[in-house]
Amino acid sequence: MADSNAAAPEPIVRLIEAFHKLPGVGPKSAQRLAYHILRAPEQEAAALATAISDVKQRIALCSVCMNITETDPCGLCANQQRDPTVICVVEQPLDILAIERTGGFRGRYHVLHGVLNPMDGIGPDDLRLRELLARVQDGTVKEVIMATNPSLEGEATSMYVQRLLSPFGVRVTRLARGLPSGADLEYTDDVTLARALEGRQDF
Amino acid sequence: MADSNAAAPEPIVRLIEAFHKLPGVGPKSAQRLAYHILRAPEQEAAALATAISDVKQRIALCSVCMNITETDPCGLCANQQRDPTVICVVEQPLDILAIERTGGFRGRYHVLHGVLNPMDGIGPDDLRLRELLARVQDGTVKEVIMATNPSLEGEATSMYVQRLLSPFGVRVTRLARGLPSGADLEYTDDVTLARALEGRQDF
Repeated sequence: MADSNAAAPEPIVRLIEAFHKLPGVGPKSAQRLAYHILRAPEQEAAALATAISDVKQRIALCSVCMNITETDPCGLCANQQRDPTVICVVEQPLDILAIERTGGFRGRYHVLHGVLNPMDGIGPDDLRLRELLARVQDGTVKEVIMATNPSLEGEATSMYVQRLLSPFGVRVTRLARGLPSGADLEYTDDVTLARALEGRQDF
Repeated sequence: MADSNAAAPEPIVRLIEAFHKLPGVGPKSAQRLAYHILRAPEQEAAALATAISDVKQRIALCSVCMNITETDPCGLCANQQRDPTVICVVEQPLDILAIERTGGFRGRYHVLHGVLNPMDGIGPDDLRLRELLARVQDGTVKEVIMATNPSLEGEATSMYVQRLLSPFGVRVTRLARGLPSGADLEYTDDVTLARALEGRQDF
């Protein structure tokens, strides 16, 4: 990469390398993005540079739910309209946005910031589990909804949390498994179909 | 978009929007990039922010060839080893990198910064044509190689430049059209095949 950009001025090479470090940005896209910045209005480039710095300086984790926030506690935790007896546990802050978009949940959240993954050396101490336990211990919480991804690691993490919480007499549920909306039975994978059968619901 | 990010803190929303303005970055990718920055080491984020500002502040156009550069004239124009009698005309600075990678060209360059495109209101005055004419007028240049893209606009621009230069008695050539290396005749489009036939070469 460095070689193919040898004819480019140093600041451009450095910008290409910085873009290339972003997830999903290959060497060609990084080049295109860097040259776009070069041609873009001063204001647009400045907005991006400032936004990047701001995010690092002004965003922290909510001390209650571990979601990212500018204020502590975060807006979701501070909202008295939200039911404090139900906590929805997610892997990442982005998952909260997805659930909020549905408009179907009015409880509180808890962000684990990852999943158990022994292959990558990520164990229980690397997740925000202690903070979750602390919230469950005071007796307010009646239900914990595990909303991890339906992946191997997500499932394993949910099972781990479920066992961890069992001594506290709190109800632990998880998101339903089944056919996604608009799916075509013929093209649905075996695991999804098997789960949909297992979890079949009455009319 | 703004709506689906309503639950996110303002600096994150602003960063998502800034990323979304980049070419080829959709709303989902913008979200993923913004959250990546949030989790990335301080140093990586700072490197990207600084690189963006630096590019805008330290890069200018070479007064000779209109390539982007930190020094004026640029390294390619200042290089006395390069043949001043041949100018390769390209659409964008990135095209120079591509040609340099081949190692097959030792002349000078000229960047038009665009192509003629009446639909987008881009006429001859929007390209760096005056600067090209000035370079050809002093008699040093013997050949101008048009290396615009083999698109409708690229071809039209090359033809325009060719006519523009005809009074100066300079040889104007263009990149060969034909089969790309590794192509499969069966799957080659008609236009490419027709051009390859027209331009057939002796052994």
